[in-house]
Amino acid sequence: MLTGVHVVILGGDARQLEVINKLNELDATLDIVGFDQLDRYYTGVTKIDVEDIQYDSVDAIVLPAGGTYDDGTIQTVFSNKSVRMTEEWLRQTPKHCTIYTGITTPYLKECAKACEREIVQLFERDDVAIYNSIPTVEGTLMIVIQNMDITIHQSKVVILGLGRTGYTMSRVFAALGANVCVGASRSESLARINEMGMVPFHIKELEDYVTDVDVCINTIPARILTGRILSKMPLHTLIVDIASHPGGTDFRYAEKRGIKAMHVLGIPAMVAPKTAGRIIGNVLSELLLEKYIEEDDIIES
Amino acid sequence: MLTGVHVVILGGDARQLEVINKLNELDATLDIVGFDQLDRYYTGVTKIDVEDIQYDSVDAIVLPAGGTYDDGTIQTVFSNKSVRMTEEWLRQTPKHCTIYTGITTPYLKECAKACEREIVQLFERDDVAIYNSIPTVEGTLMIVIQNMDITIHQSKVVILGLGRTGYTMSRVFAALGANVCVGASRSESLARINEMGMVPFHIKELEDYVTDVDVCINTIPARILTGRILSKMPLHTLIVDIASHPGGTDFRYAEKRGIKAMHVLGIPAMVAPKTAGRIIGNVLSELLLEKYIEEDDIIES
Repeated sequence: MLTGVHVVILGGDARQLEVINKLNELDATLDIVGFDQLDRYYTGVTKIDVEDIQYDSVDAIVLPAGGTYDDGTIQTVFSNKSVRMTEEWLRQTPKHCTIYTGITTPYLKECAKACEREIVQLFERDDVAIYNSIPTVEGTLMIVIQNMDITIHQSKVVILGLGRTGYTMSRVFAALGANVCVGASRSESLARINEMGMVPFHIKELEDYVTDVDVCINTIPARILTGRILSKMPLHTLIVDIASHPGGTDFRYAEKRGIKAMHVLGIPAMVAPKTAGRIIGNVLSELLLEKYIEEDDIIES
Repeated sequence: MLTGVHVVILGGDARQLEVINKLNELDATLDIVGFDQLDRYYTGVTKIDVEDIQYDSVDAIVLPAGGTYDDGTIQTVFSNKSVRMTEEWLRQTPKHCTIYTGITTPYLKECAKACEREIVQLFERDDVAIYNSIPTVEGTLMIVIQNMDITIHQSKVVILGLGRTGYTMSRVFAALGANVCVGASRSESLARINEMGMVPFHIKELEDYVTDVDVCINTIPARILTGRILSKMPLHTLIVDIASHPGGTDFRYAEKRGIKAMHVLGIPAMVAPKTAGRIIGNVLSELLLEKYIEEDDIIES
C-alpha cells in the first residue's frame, strides 16, 4: 500500500484516469490538478488547483505522458485552466520529490536540473516499452487492414527492426498468416527472427526485399526508407512508419512516387487509452512502492 | 486453359474485376455486361450491353456475389444502365449453361428452375467459406480495435460457434493474446476448442460465460444473444454479430441496456475487395475447368 505517500497528478489525458484509479486503490494521498471538468469523483482523491498544492509534503509528481510543452505548460484535457510547471514551485517540494513522466522535454530537464529533482522517464523503461508494444501493434493492424484492399494473410510484410516493438509486430503479423521478412543488424536479432520462423535479412540488403512488398512497417528511428529504397517498391505498397519523430521514411519522395506512407505516433493512447493508462499506472505504482515503502511494509501489504 | 469457353459476367462490384482478370488469364471468351464506366480495358474482353449477348453460345453466366434483386435486376457498380435477368433470355442459352452466383435469391431460383438451368452458389461451398473467413476475421479485428478502449490482448473474448468462420476467429484472437472462450454444441467442436488451447463451453451454459466478457462475437445464425443473456453482460461489452440476416442478437434490448452491438455483414468485400475477388475468381475458374475442359486439355494446359 502507498498509505501516506503524497502524489500530485498534474494534468494529462484519459490515460491518467487509470493512473488515478490505481494509486487510489493503493491508498496514496492523491491530489489531482487539471481535472475540474471531469464528471467523476473518487473517494479520497482531491481535485485542486495548482496554486493550492501543499508543496512541502509532495513525494511524487506525475506528469502527462508527453511531459511539459516548451514553455512549461502542461496538457490538461479535463480542464480549461492553464497549468504550468515552474522552478519556483518545484523548489518548494522536498529534495526527494521525484517527477514521473512518459518522456522528458528540454524545459522539464532544465527545470528539474536547476532544482536538483530526479526525473523518471517511464517510456524509456524496457518493461513499459514492451507493454506499450501491444496496443501499438494492435493499432498498426487496424491501420493496415483499413488501408489495404488485400488481406494481411498471405501478403508480404517487411518489418524493419526487432526492438521491443518490432518483435511484437513480427510475431503478430506472422500469426495472422502474413509472409513476414524482418530486417535487423545484430546477428542475435537475425538468429531470433530465424528461430521465430520468419525470414531474416540484414538492413543493408533491404533493397532486395522490397521489390514485391505489400506492407512495410518501420520501427527504426533513422532515415532507412530512402528514395533509393522507395524507388524499388511496387506502387501499391503501404508504408506505416511508427519510428519516433521524424520517422525513417522520405515521405516527400514517397508522395511523389505515389506510394502511401503514413507516420503514426502515440498509437497506444489512440487505440487503447484504458490499457495505455493501466500500463503507466502499474509501473508507476511499482516504482512508488519500491521507493517509498520499507521492505517490511511491502511484505505486510 | 478455358480457351473457347464463353463466359458472360453480368454486373457486380470491385470483386468482379479480379474474376475478370483470372478468367481472362485462362483465355476464356469473356463478355462483360455492366462495366461501361470502368476505365480499364482488357485485351480479349468485350464490354457489351445485355441486349447484345450471343445467348446461344453462352456456357456460363457469372452474377454478382449477391445474385439478383427481387425484381431480377442486377447490381452494376460500374454502370448506370439497368441490367435484368429474365426467363426470356435465359431460355435462349444452351441447356448446359450454368449460373454462378455468391448466394441465390427467390427470383433467381425461380428463373433458373423455369428454364431448367443449373445454379452454383459459390458462398455455400466449404472452401469458399473458409477462404472468406480470412478477410471476415481481419475485418472483425479492425472493428474490435476501433471500438474498444482496451487491447484485444488479455481481454476476455467470447466467440459463439466453431464453424468455418468461428474457427478462424478463435485462432486469430487467441494468437493476439486474448483470453478466448468458444461456445459450441457438438462434442467434437468442444474437443477441438480444448485442443486449440482455448476454453470450450456448451452454448446452453452461455450465461455463465458472459458476466465478465469484454467482446462477444457471434457467428451462429440463430437468436442466441437474447435479452436474458444480454442482461448478464457488463455494460462495456462490445458485441459484433456477423451471423447472416437478421443476426443472433436482440439488438433492441442491447440498445436499451446501453450495450454496443453491431451487426456487420459482407465484411470481405468491405475490407479486402481484391482478396475477396480472388477467392471467387480462383474457385470459379477451377469449377469451369472441371466442367468444360476435357481431362486431356487440363493435362496439356
